[in-house]
Amino acid sequence: MPFADTHELLNRLRHIVGEAHVLTEGDLSAYEQDWRKRTRGKALAVVRPGSTQEVADVVKACAAASVSLVPQGGNTGLVVGSIPSEAGDQVVLSLLRMHAVRAIDADNLTLTVEAGCILQNVQQAAEQAGFLFPLSLGAEGSCTIGGNLATNAGGTQVLRYGNARELCLGLEVVTAQGEVLHGLSGLRKDNTGYDLRNLMIGSEGTLGIITAATMKLYPMPAASLTAWVAVPSVAHAVKLLGLAHQHLGAGLTGFEMMGQFALSLVDTHYPHLRVPLWQDTPYCVLLENADNESEAHARQRFEDLLELALEDGYVTDAVVAENLTQARNLWHIRESITLAQAEEGLNIKHDISVPISSIPAFVETTDALLAREIPGVRLVNFGHLGDGNLHYNVQAPELGDPKVFLRDHETQVNALVYQSVKRFGGSISAEHGVGSMKVDDLPDYKDPVALTLMRQLKRALDPKGTLNPGRVVR
Amino acid sequence: MPFADTHELLNRLRHIVGEAHVLTEGDLSAYEQDWRKRTRGKALAVVRPGSTQEVADVVKACAAASVSLVPQGGNTGLVVGSIPSEAGDQVVLSLLRMHAVRAIDADNLTLTVEAGCILQNVQQAAEQAGFLFPLSLGAEGSCTIGGNLATNAGGTQVLRYGNARELCLGLEVVTAQGEVLHGLSGLRKDNTGYDLRNLMIGSEGTLGIITAATMKLYPMPAASLTAWVAVPSVAHAVKLLGLAHQHLGAGLTGFEMMGQFALSLVDTHYPHLRVPLWQDTPYCVLLENADNESEAHARQRFEDLLELALEDGYVTDAVVAENLTQARNLWHIRESITLAQAEEGLNIKHDISVPISSIPAFVETTDALLAREIPGVRLVNFGHLGDGNLHYNVQAPELGDPKVFLRDHETQVNALVYQSVKRFGGSISAEHGVGSMKVDDLPDYKDPVALTLMRQLKRALDPKGTLNPGRVVR
Repeated sequence: MPFADTHELLNRLRHIVGEAHVLTEGDLSAYEQDWRKRTRGKALAVVRPGSTQEVADVVKACAAASVSLVPQGGNTGLVVGSIPSEAGDQVVLSLLRMHAVRAIDADNLTLTVEAGCILQNVQQAAEQAGFLFPLSLGAEGSCTIGGNLATNAGGTQVLRYGNARELCLGLEVVTAQGEVLHGLSGLRKDNTGYDLRNLMIGSEGTLGIITAATMKLYPMPAASLTAWVAVPSVAHAVKLLGLAHQHLGAGLTGFEMMGQFALSLVDTHYPHLRVPLWQDTPYCVLLENADNESEAHARQRFEDLLELALEDGYVTDAVVAENLTQARNLWHIRESITLAQAEEGLNIKHDISVPISSIPAFVETTDALLAREIPGVRLVNFGHLGDGNLHYNVQAPELGDPKVFLRDHETQVNALVYQSVKRFGGSISAEHGVGSMKVDDLPDYKDPVALTLMRQLKRALDPKGTLNPGRVVR
Repeated sequence: MPFADTHELLNRLRHIVGEAHVLTEGDLSAYEQDWRKRTRGKALAVVRPGSTQEVADVVKACAAASVSLVPQGGNTGLVVGSIPSEAGDQVVLSLLRMHAVRAIDADNLTLTVEAGCILQNVQQAAEQAGFLFPLSLGAEGSCTIGGNLATNAGGTQVLRYGNARELCLGLEVVTAQGEVLHGLSGLRKDNTGYDLRNLMIGSEGTLGIITAATMKLYPMPAASLTAWVAVPSVAHAVKLLGLAHQHLGAGLTGFEMMGQFALSLVDTHYPHLRVPLWQDTPYCVLLENADNESEAHARQRFEDLLELALEDGYVTDAVVAENLTQARNLWHIRESITLAQAEEGLNIKHDISVPISSIPAFVETTDALLAREIPGVRLVNFGHLGDGNLHYNVQAPELGDPKVFLRDHETQVNALVYQSVKRFGGSISAEHGVGSMKVDDLPDYKDPVALTLMRQLKRALDPKGTLNPGRVVR
C-alpha cells in the first residue's frame, strides 16, 4: 500500500475514533502477539472504537481503502485467529473500549452487554442482579464476551448450559459493508427468516463484527456440590455419565475426566494441591451437581448416585467436597493440568471431540497408535467428557530434548491424532476454533461440501475480504 | 415450459425414483392443499424419493431443467410454505418415504432419523429405548421431523428443551446443486467453521433439503406433574414465571397462559372438559414440573411453589392434577382452544413473541387498541408465556357475519397487532415461520440489514432459485 494512501486511511481512522485510539507506535505486543506466544504479527494500526457507529465507520473506511481488519477482544484465543499478519498491512480492531453492560432484564432473564466486556465482569453483573451467567472458562479474567461469541467458546458448564452459542438470544453486528444489524431482541422464539445470529457466532470475525449481545441469565442455584471419583476405565466413566444424567437430570452441571499421567503432573509440580485418589486408578472424574432446592438435598442426591455407581462398579472410590473451599480446590486441580503440563515442558495440544459413545474406543486405539509410532510419548488426556470433548495432549518423552521432539514429531503427532478423530467421526477443533492455525488442516478432515458452502457464504457476505481474511476458510 | 421438456423431466424423475413415485394424476390434494385450507396449488409432479441419493439426483434433474422444487414433509405448516404455486410449474418433493430411524446411540444420548419420520414415531422410538425426545406439538401425529427442523418448530416443551433447533446436533442436507452435506456427527461440540446446521434449520427448504438429522435424547423424568392456577393479571403471570424458574430450575417444563375468553370458548363448545377456575379470573396458567427423583418429590416442590405464589398474591387459586388422567385433561383443555375457536367461527390467528418482561404492557396496549379501533372484537389470547410467545388471536364480533368481518378487517387487524409487536421489539412469527404467507410482511417488520443478509445468503447458496423460491425471502 502506497505511503500516501496509508497516511490518508490513518487520518480517516483518527477522525472517526479520535487521535488517542489509533495506535501505531510503542509496545503493541498485547495486540500483535498470540496468547500462546507462538506467532507475532505486525499491525498497520490498532484502532479502538468506542461505539457501534464508530466500528461501522472504521469498517467502511478500511473497506474503501482495501485494507482488511482483524477484530480482537481479549486476544486469548488458542488458534491464532485474532492477531494481524506479519506483513503489517492489516488493521487490528480492538473492541475493548466497548465494555458497557447495557441492560439487565430480570423478568426476561436476559443481560445485554457490549462485545468488549470481560467475561468475568459479565458474570459479576449477573450475580449482582441475583442471577447466574454460566459461561465459564480458564481465560475468564481477560477474554471478552464478544470473543467468546465469535469463537463459540465452551468451558466447564457446557454439559448443562451449552456453548456460548446456546447462551445467546440476540446480536448487534457490523457487517463487512459497515452496516449495523440490529438484532438485540432478547426473544426466545423468532422464526422470521435465516438464523443470522448463529451464522455470526463461531465465525471468528470473518463474516461480521459482533458489537453487542443479549445473553440468557439463569436463576442462581440454591447449592452446588463437587465430587471426585476414581473410575477403572474410560468406558466406566462413560457409563457413570449416563447414570449421572439419569439420576441428576439437569442438576448435572460438570463432568470432567482426567487421566493418571495428567494428574501425576499436577501432583509433581503442585504438591500442595493434594490431588485425591489418583495413584491407584487410570482415570478420575470430577462431577458437579447444582440444586435449586438446598445443599442437603444436593448432597443426598449425590450420595445416592455414588452409591449406585459403586454398586455397579463404575466407580471404585469417591470423595464429596465438604465445603466450598474443598470444591474450589478440586476444580483448581482440574484447571492446573494445563499449567502443570507447561511446567513439565513443551507439549502438543489437541482439542478434539468424538461422539461420547466412541470415546473409550478412540482413547484405546489412539493411545496404542501413538505408543507404537512414537515410543516414549506421554499422553496427557483430560477434558469435558460430558461433551465428548478431550484435550488429548501429547508431552514429549521424558528423556531427550523436547524442542527436538516437537520439531521432528509435531506434524506427525497431529496427523495421527486427527486421522484417528476422523475415523471416529469427530472434530479436530471442539471448542477452540480454526483461526489461522487449523485453516489448512480443515480440507483433510472436514466434509468437502461443508467447505464449499463455507466459501460461498464468505464470498457472499464479505466479497472484498475485509474481515479477518485467511482465518476459518481460505 | 414446453411440453416436450416437461415430458423429458418427468421421464428423468421416473428413472430416478421409480415410476410409482412420480405422481401427476389422481387426487393430489394432500400435497397441494395447505393445512389450514386457505390456498391450493398445482404440482407439475409429486416426486417421492426413497433415499438421500435419489433426493440429490432429483434436485440435479430439476435444476438442469430450470424447474423449482417445493420440499414437503407432513404438509402441516401454517404459513403456506410447503405447497406448490398455482401455476403448475413446481415439483413437490415429498420426503415421506424416507422415514427410517437410522440409529439410537444410548451412550451419546442421540437418535439419527430420516426427514420423513413422523414426529410421534420419533418420540416412540426414543421411548422404546428408554429416553425422552421432548419435541411435542399439536400436529405431532402427522408432521415430520424434517419439517419440524426446516421450520424450527416450537411446541409445548420449549421452555425447558428449546425449539427444534436446540434439539439437533447434526444434519444431512441436499444442497441446491444436488450435493450431499454429510453432517450427522452427533457431536456436542464442533468449532470447525460456520454453523451450517443452524443456517439450514428454519430456512424452510429454501437453502437446502434436510434428509436426515441427529437429535438429542434426554433421560426420562421419574415423574411429571401438572398444575392449573388462576392469576389476577398478565403481570402476575410473569411474576409467577420468575418464581417458578427460581424454585423449580430446569424442572419447570411448561408454562402456558390462557385468557378468560379463550377458556370460555372451550367451556361453551366442549363442556365435558370441565375447565377449572376460569370463571372468576382474567387468566389461568398451566404449569408442568418434571422431576428426576420421584413423584412425591415433584409434588412437594410444586406445593411449596404454589404456597409461596399464593402468599405473594401471584396466584389466587390452584389445583394440582392428582394423576396422569387429570394432567392429560388439563393439557387437553389448553390444546382445545384452537378447535373451540374454529367451532365459534372464523378468526384471525397470530403467532407473535415479545420479550417476556414486555408481555403485560403489550397485552394491555394491544387489547385497548383493538377494542378502540374495531368495536366488538373478541380477543383469544393464549400461548407459551414462558417463551414470550402468544397466539394472540382475534375472533369476529359476536353479532354480524364473520366472513364479512374478515374480508373488511383482517388486513387492518394484522397491521394493528404487528405494529404493536414491532413497538415492543417482538417478532411477527415466533414459531410458525414465514412461508409465502408472511414473506411480504417481513420488510415492514424486520431489520433491513437482516433482510439484505438473507437475500445475499439465498443468492449465494441457491443462485438459480431451485429450492422453494418466493418463500421466506424474495
